[in-house]
Amino acid sequence: MITCYAFSQVPPAAAGYVRDLRVRWALEEAGIPYRMRLVGPKPGDMTPAEYRAIQPFGQIPAIQDGDLALFESGAILLYLGERSPLLLPRQEPERTLVVQWMFAALNTIEVPVQDLGMIELAYADQAWAKERRPALVDWARRRLAQLAERMDGSEYLVERFSAADILMSSVLRIIQNTTLLDEQPSVAAYRNRCEARPAFQAALAGQLKDLDS
Amino acid sequence: MITCYAFSQVPPAAAGYVRDLRVRWALEEAGIPYRMRLVGPKPGDMTPAEYRAIQPFGQIPAIQDGDLALFESGAILLYLGERSPLLLPRQEPERTLVVQWMFAALNTIEVPVQDLGMIELAYADQAWAKERRPALVDWARRRLAQLAERMDGSEYLVERFSAADILMSSVLRIIQNTTLLDEQPSVAAYRNRCEARPAFQAALAGQLKDLDS
Repeated sequence: MITCYAFSQVPPAAAGYVRDLRVRWALEEAGIPYRMRLVGPKPGDMTPAEYRAIQPFGQIPAIQDGDLALFESGAILLYLGERSPLLLPRQEPERTLVVQWMFAALNTIEVPVQDLGMIELAYADQAWAKERRPALVDWARRRLAQLAERMDGSEYLVERFSAADILMSSVLRIIQNTTLLDEQPSVAAYRNRCEARPAFQAALAGQLKDLDS
Repeated sequence: MITCYAFSQVPPAAAGYVRDLRVRWALEEAGIPYRMRLVGPKPGDMTPAEYRAIQPFGQIPAIQDGDLALFESGAILLYLGERSPLLLPRQEPERTLVVQWMFAALNTIEVPVQDLGMIELAYADQAWAKERRPALVDWARRRLAQLAERMDGSEYLVERFSAADILMSSVLRIIQNTTLLDEQPSVAAYRNRCEARPAFQAALAGQLKDLDS
């Protein structure tokens, strides 16, 4: 059975946003059985030092599948995609385009969105953040407009729901407390469509429960 | 034949750093024939507006292979890897680990490195950048130390040279004008080992030539 690692404790504002959510969501969509292993300071947790043998940067997520320890949410979703055509279609060009949009979510959309999200979450009162924020907002706004234009109202990034939508909607979630998504109603609707899926709801409930226990 | 898109003109400090370098390098390693198509303001260039039909965010790189237009350097390298075991090994777990390190290069190492590189390149004189810089340096320094610890002096990320090394050494290149790599001699040596490859030299010469003509 696949083991998925997650933190047992995070700052309150991070609950529901930790990146094991992406992996839980994919596992739930694919119907692959898994168990959680929590990392942190609580009794029974794996210690952060032990976890560094699995994940050299100390980041969540990682999984263990038999002898294989694997980290990076994008790599894990591609790996799970080999077991689930729902996550990663078998036919071309759909398969290659899903991979393309997985990278686009993480490398083109997440870059300004995560910088902006960190400012909102942790640095809002700092002088540098106030000075930097407008340029990041412009950058994120431009990317969302370009995404809306390319999607052109389609339900998902590549025909049917896939691992690309798990990553893209998870990235959009980072700025859900800003007004940026309101400016692109089709992108906001896309995000809501993804998050309405039972597998996302199960994944989110799982993360919140593990953080609360 | 594969067409690889690149800019015909960039700010002088960006010459030799534009991301088509990663794709040219992979094509050279794999021995896959390709031709360049330049995007920009010069006579004969594809206009940026035309290029947006290929790449919705206006970014380089993208490739065209028959009917397929594909963007995101990570996705392109995985696509080329299907044609070249040198880029992407056929056996497991090596193949999955190469994919893991491709994502780690782009999503874990490049994040602080690119933020820091942009400050060095474009914002060094701005007050927010001066205030933000020390935390970014610490973040990048920690990631490089963790990378050095995991690599533990090995020649490449996963046994033999692969697409993961193209992405990781390209990311390390972004901070070559800082002293951060000097602090991790094994990582600096790894980067030099990658860049000494004839395919990298050919790719770099190609980019500089196209920008100069």
